[in-house]
Amino acid sequence: MTIQIRKLDSSNPDFNAQLSAVLAFEASEDEAIDRAAAQILADVKARGDAAVIEYTNRFDKLTASDVASLEIGKDELQRALASLAPERRTALQTAANRVRAYHERQKAETGSDGFTYTEADGTVLGQKVTPLDRVGIYVPGGKAAYPSSVLMNAIPAKVAGVQEIIMVVPTPSGVKNELVLAAAAIAGVDRVFTIGGAQAVGALAYGTATIPQVDKIVGPGNAYVAAAKRRVFGIVGIDMIAGPSEILVVCDGTTDPDWIAMDLFSQAEHDELAQSILVCPDAAYIEKVEASINRQLDAMPRKDVIRTSLVNRGAMVKVGDMDEACEIANMIAAEHLEISTENPQQWADKIRHAGAMFLGRFSSESLGDYCAGPNHVLPTSRTARFSSPLGVYDFQKRSSIIHVSEAGAQTLGKVAAELAYGEGLQAHAGSAEYRLK
Amino acid sequence: MTIQIRKLDSSNPDFNAQLSAVLAFEASEDEAIDRAAAQILADVKARGDAAVIEYTNRFDKLTASDVASLEIGKDELQRALASLAPERRTALQTAANRVRAYHERQKAETGSDGFTYTEADGTVLGQKVTPLDRVGIYVPGGKAAYPSSVLMNAIPAKVAGVQEIIMVVPTPSGVKNELVLAAAAIAGVDRVFTIGGAQAVGALAYGTATIPQVDKIVGPGNAYVAAAKRRVFGIVGIDMIAGPSEILVVCDGTTDPDWIAMDLFSQAEHDELAQSILVCPDAAYIEKVEASINRQLDAMPRKDVIRTSLVNRGAMVKVGDMDEACEIANMIAAEHLEISTENPQQWADKIRHAGAMFLGRFSSESLGDYCAGPNHVLPTSRTARFSSPLGVYDFQKRSSIIHVSEAGAQTLGKVAAELAYGEGLQAHAGSAEYRLK
Repeated sequence: MTIQIRKLDSSNPDFNAQLSAVLAFEASEDEAIDRAAAQILADVKARGDAAVIEYTNRFDKLTASDVASLEIGKDELQRALASLAPERRTALQTAANRVRAYHERQKAETGSDGFTYTEADGTVLGQKVTPLDRVGIYVPGGKAAYPSSVLMNAIPAKVAGVQEIIMVVPTPSGVKNELVLAAAAIAGVDRVFTIGGAQAVGALAYGTATIPQVDKIVGPGNAYVAAAKRRVFGIVGIDMIAGPSEILVVCDGTTDPDWIAMDLFSQAEHDELAQSILVCPDAAYIEKVEASINRQLDAMPRKDVIRTSLVNRGAMVKVGDMDEACEIANMIAAEHLEISTENPQQWADKIRHAGAMFLGRFSSESLGDYCAGPNHVLPTSRTARFSSPLGVYDFQKRSSIIHVSEAGAQTLGKVAAELAYGEGLQAHAGSAEYRLK
Repeated sequence: MTIQIRKLDSSNPDFNAQLSAVLAFEASEDEAIDRAAAQILADVKARGDAAVIEYTNRFDKLTASDVASLEIGKDELQRALASLAPERRTALQTAANRVRAYHERQKAETGSDGFTYTEADGTVLGQKVTPLDRVGIYVPGGKAAYPSSVLMNAIPAKVAGVQEIIMVVPTPSGVKNELVLAAAAIAGVDRVFTIGGAQAVGALAYGTATIPQVDKIVGPGNAYVAAAKRRVFGIVGIDMIAGPSEILVVCDGTTDPDWIAMDLFSQAEHDELAQSILVCPDAAYIEKVEASINRQLDAMPRKDVIRTSLVNRGAMVKVGDMDEACEIANMIAAEHLEISTENPQQWADKIRHAGAMFLGRFSSESLGDYCAGPNHVLPTSRTARFSSPLGVYDFQKRSSIIHVSEAGAQTLGKVAAELAYGEGLQAHAGSAEYRLK
């Protein structure tokens, strides 16, 4: 069955409206899910371990007697790692090493040592950078359990200097994912509990007798997990709530169409809501990619998901030239942007908004998903306009340093007092004026 | 009337529980406010300017005919600046210059140029840093309108390179705050609209015919504004939703008690929910500060607010020594931490969690509030455990750069394919394998 992918042309007067319609995605906020998550959180906050064990036994069909019995020891993690086929273990270790190397570089390049400077009057100003003390990583159970996500969430935290990483992963009916446990071993996760859902989020946010309270919770989860994370935001930090994954391929029409078709598939196979868009100035090339899609689709194990995703959310956009392609890429602000062209850097220089840029024909998104080094946790749904890949900086925070000298207090005190009076805050003024001679 | 401030002693076996009770603060989430904000947002999204003008006229008691008439031109901002008393204008300009200088330094020290590095096989990895395109700054109207907040929110955005800053400030009954407009002129705000409330948040988040859509909304507001910001988070970026302001003074007992009393006042005068805590190893000194508080309180114009704040939320904590004081400071993770001691750096080195550290006796918090240079928008309610002062980095975002060479694709492709098969994602594997020779 041939599939038809939506075609847009940027020269069409309605193009902007058409593109907006393609991009439109509203996360359905289910009131019932939100209320259920809120109730579970309140219960975990009030009853701690007792609530965690009840929900875990109920939702995951377990018969555990206490939360301590749900902890997976480091020896078991190491056994999981040892049990992997050698080539898979090596691949996982190679990926981890590359991810670690990239994030070490990121740490070095982003001011992790903080700074201070001294003014002429002896006043010292600056910023201290410190890691978070303890971080929780949520890992989904079942089919969507991705060892690569364990690496991508845990390694930046380790590199940042987080002292303790607590991983939670539900094990419905007691089934553990050995690859996920092996990834936890490689990434240096400190403790693992086989709990999930809103109850796991609550346990990490509030702490229980058995599960330590964390300072931030990262990692993807289902709608209950997302609702619970939104609700505990402020008590702990959270990462972005991710929307469906997206790829935007900007191609000049010189890459093998089969490669591009497969790149579009690799996004579409994630999820029926995933979005794959091709932007190209060459109409004949667009036809070739579409033909390749139809030729290759039936051989894909996840062809039904791919088909639904491409038909419902995919698009192929004919543009006037590559400059216009870059403008459209900035409007889309895609999570993954492949610039599959000759001399891709000239186009990358024009890109302001993208989660990750994959430059040149050899940079398939899948290389970045697993092992190139940069993080695969990226801003979705146009949030690359204002947010960043998960990084070392997400596991650090800054404190301002203000050390005013006696001389500095004389000049600053007068300015501060003047403005404090202007704002009607006399104690602020008084506090500054006491430091005047 | 003498006031009694809660006294705690760290040697008490119940101390941790007592301290937790002092710190406990739950932002009341008012369902009615949240629903009202949601309804206003939906209306602004659907009807744009028409909804904005209706709500503005109703809530702010105006009779404007259209949103365009609510824009304040740059000439009016400049007139507001020119109308200030010279000493106040100079103070505002000095403060702005110092805030700008600090944030320029911050920009230079935090990897704003991004980075790339090339691996042996020619693969290039890195990170591109770009400013947000357009930012909205919410400024409260009426009594709580603080020109210093305009500087602290707008200047880091300008320094980051944001192209356009849109400020919204409600003018109930048409009353404009000249200091706020003058601050907008100094800070380089591009456009100002006299709108506020959830309708202003909605206009900035969705855009209307008159008001451009922004990428992030920062700045404090009332409960409706906070509820609206929470709801548009994801469509645009937002800053933290701030809780009541707090100061923690760690003092070795050698600073003039009147200075410390006034520092505690300067926090308490903000708000009845504001929190002022003194931690000190010297019981006699604590008594002196309390006596000073009682001696000085009646002279304070905002004495009623100060009294309520100190009695309900203040505390004085006797500790065994300064090391213990630092441990407690890390538990409290205060928004403002004054280390009012001899040789404060030795204690600052032990602090992991604080929004801003004010070191030495001359560094009153009020100097930092107005003009030291670092930002006064700081994490409250223990969120300094995982978040940072507002900064240049809040107006930038990062994009990963992945440019895999043909040689790099050979090694990375095998690793990626192995892991993709492990995760059951065959198109990911295929996409990597197509790049193998």
